[in-house]
Amino acid sequence: MAIAELTQAQRDQLLADHPGWGLARDGKAIERKLEFADFNEAFGFMTRVALLADKADHHPEWFNVYNRVELTLTTHDAGGLSQRDADMASAIDALL
Amino acid sequence: MAIAELTQAQRDQLLADHPGWGLARDGKAIERKLEFADFNEAFGFMTRVALLADKADHHPEWFNVYNRVELTLTTHDAGGLSQRDADMASAIDALL
Repeated sequence: MAIAELTQAQRDQLLADHPGWGLARDGKAIERKLEFADFNEAFGFMTRVALLADKADHHPEWFNVYNRVELTLTTHDAGGLSQRDADMASAIDALL
Repeated sequence: MAIAELTQAQRDQLLADHPGWGLARDGKAIERKLEFADFNEAFGFMTRVALLADKADHHPEWFNVYNRVELTLTTHDAGGLSQRDADMASAIDALL
């Protein structure tokens, strides 16, 4: 079963609820860029996200170099943003 | 103290010794793209690399989405490739 893509109103709500995130890829994804004290903190954060993501079976696209982590969330099965991205953004924000 | 950039001959040797890697960024970096069975395997690999990298204080730039991992190695203090990248490539290859 395909997952429903968020409506424009739902996307606006997602951004209002998650001020650290911005739209990317013409509104098909959200991204957040983070900076930590060092690699230990950055990868520690990534490890916590990895456990959440694998449990939810909803995985980020992410880039890391040293203390920087860039996350992108999208739902391939929805062809854009879905509630799963909003939920994952909430779970990630709760770690910070 | 600045770290010595590899000479052309040393770069050629690095690539000969590490066939999984290719030059990137006009010869200033090397990259390797890997595919695993799933996210668990991909992130398990990343965790092993993270431990090596932090111990060596030489960190990759890397991207992951689900089962794919793309690694880039370069040495900022050398303005390009150094022996540290060759050593890290060897350590990463030994995990595979």
